[in-house]
Amino acid sequence: MNIDMIRAAALRARGHVRQTPLLSSPALDALAGRRVLVKAECLQHTGSFKFRGGWAAVSALTDAQRGAGVIAYSSGNHAQGVALAARTLGAPAVIVMPANAPAVKIANTRALGAEVILYDRATEDRDAIGQAQAQARGLTLIKPYDEPEVIAGQGTCGLEIAAQAAEEGITQADVLICCGGGGLTGGIALALQDGAPGLRARPCEPAGFDDVTRSLAAGTIQRNAQAEGSICDAIVTPQPGDLTFPIMRDRCGPGIVVTDDDCLRAMALAFHHLRIVVEPGGAVALAAALFHPHTVQGDAVIAVATGGNVDPALFARVIGTYPGL
Amino acid sequence: MNIDMIRAAALRARGHVRQTPLLSSPALDALAGRRVLVKAECLQHTGSFKFRGGWAAVSALTDAQRGAGVIAYSSGNHAQGVALAARTLGAPAVIVMPANAPAVKIANTRALGAEVILYDRATEDRDAIGQAQAQARGLTLIKPYDEPEVIAGQGTCGLEIAAQAAEEGITQADVLICCGGGGLTGGIALALQDGAPGLRARPCEPAGFDDVTRSLAAGTIQRNAQAEGSICDAIVTPQPGDLTFPIMRDRCGPGIVVTDDDCLRAMALAFHHLRIVVEPGGAVALAAALFHPHTVQGDAVIAVATGGNVDPALFARVIGTYPGL
Repeated sequence: MNIDMIRAAALRARGHVRQTPLLSSPALDALAGRRVLVKAECLQHTGSFKFRGGWAAVSALTDAQRGAGVIAYSSGNHAQGVALAARTLGAPAVIVMPANAPAVKIANTRALGAEVILYDRATEDRDAIGQAQAQARGLTLIKPYDEPEVIAGQGTCGLEIAAQAAEEGITQADVLICCGGGGLTGGIALALQDGAPGLRARPCEPAGFDDVTRSLAAGTIQRNAQAEGSICDAIVTPQPGDLTFPIMRDRCGPGIVVTDDDCLRAMALAFHHLRIVVEPGGAVALAAALFHPHTVQGDAVIAVATGGNVDPALFARVIGTYPGL
Repeated sequence: MNIDMIRAAALRARGHVRQTPLLSSPALDALAGRRVLVKAECLQHTGSFKFRGGWAAVSALTDAQRGAGVIAYSSGNHAQGVALAARTLGAPAVIVMPANAPAVKIANTRALGAEVILYDRATEDRDAIGQAQAQARGLTLIKPYDEPEVIAGQGTCGLEIAAQAAEEGITQADVLICCGGGGLTGGIALALQDGAPGLRARPCEPAGFDDVTRSLAAGTIQRNAQAEGSICDAIVTPQPGDLTFPIMRDRCGPGIVVTDDDCLRAMALAFHHLRIVVEPGGAVALAAALFHPHTVQGDAVIAVATGGNVDPALFARVIGTYPGL
């Protein structure tokens, strides 16, 4: 893994991956006590940053591999990202999804032309299912984060952050990233190290699923005690990846842990003040920026809003429950 | 009014007005039967395109005028646009707002440091109130649409549309615009005429408040029968402006009229597929693109989502009521 792979992924992404805007609001600045800039990856194609990695991985395949097809396992956002990339690039796609993933994500994945195989997250192992399908059908497995091309694709988000922060006059800041397996955090950390060394990547996680934060503190990979039960379903993984952990360990600042309530409040504030739709797992970094300002350094903070695929009933409850300020 | 004023406004806007993205989704393309590109002005500062006109008008004042202050009357979005522009440029701001405007818009205008004066939309004349206040206090009145600098500022949105459409390979298309008094529609029409002559501006309005559509058809200014009662409160005006009407008459295609129900369905689809928050009046053009496709010409259509300042209870009801497809 190196910056050249990220630059190559950015070249292949041109005209296909959306450059997402860096949003802000005086109300959020006042709440956090510093400038808050939100990288709105919820506005990416398929509603999350995962399209970046999906595009990078599928576009890196040989024609023969693309013709045979791809397979991915995902709680939903990686599924949609791979499905749209595969359809656009002419590859059949099989997606292995947990049966209890949000209905909207399963429906959207099917609408993108993928074949969906459901599994039970509590009792079955998605890696085993994915690898078995891949072997039996000659499909190329595209892992959600522990995969160099996927990390390179997510890293293109970091290239954009470096350029957009410079345009805003920001050269020193923490960049807060909602973190699951570490593909996005690792990719951004690599991109920033090269293009904006004053910007520091920091993983943000929901309480009870803070494997990356504990792994970084310990210097070795730590696991979560439970596999499910977070409202931040999109970013829950058992532990950091074997590839992503050393990348993060060598380049990231300490992790930040937020409560579920912090995430829901951040979703409501993003609705009111940025007019974007953010899912709970996509609001973790903004929650850290707004409600844990003492853990952050500098006059400005950048938070990546990683996804916006949320069931409408939950979103309606959140904006009906939490205030605008 | 000419293209040079729009270019000058764009220069003054640089680094202050946000270039909003052109969003899209395969699901919306399929629904409309052609490519649908959404210019997301709900992501503009203060949540609507009105910041463009506010910035253009306040930044064009002399130092003495700015020091004395500005006044605007508005159902909410122009209010917030002028208030933020005035605060950033160091001018005191007084805003005259209808007492029955959405609470969130009144609160946001006050939060931006403006003095708010409320009036009764059914019985009082906001022009008279605004002009009386302006004379008594030495304030410069910034009208919401029938004002050259405001039209020039809104026209900067058209410059962006011309450039972004060209990047997408689109040279022939209808550009649908939620239309009240015609400041945005007129400004975009002027910008497109110069920079993208294959793009045709078309005003979109809610049923019962289709004064611009009827005026264009008749060739002379027509009034609405009623002054209020639309869910599209942000874009209801009594009639097209004296300045904006001839601009639109000479450059726009026919208007398109949509129902309130069309707007609410379009809001829900923008939530699901674009992950943006759009208010009812801001969804009129997208509603026309999605539900009145036979009135539009070409392989692609561009719809401006003009604003996203919506009361959370209404938004929750809409996404709870209307489906994702």
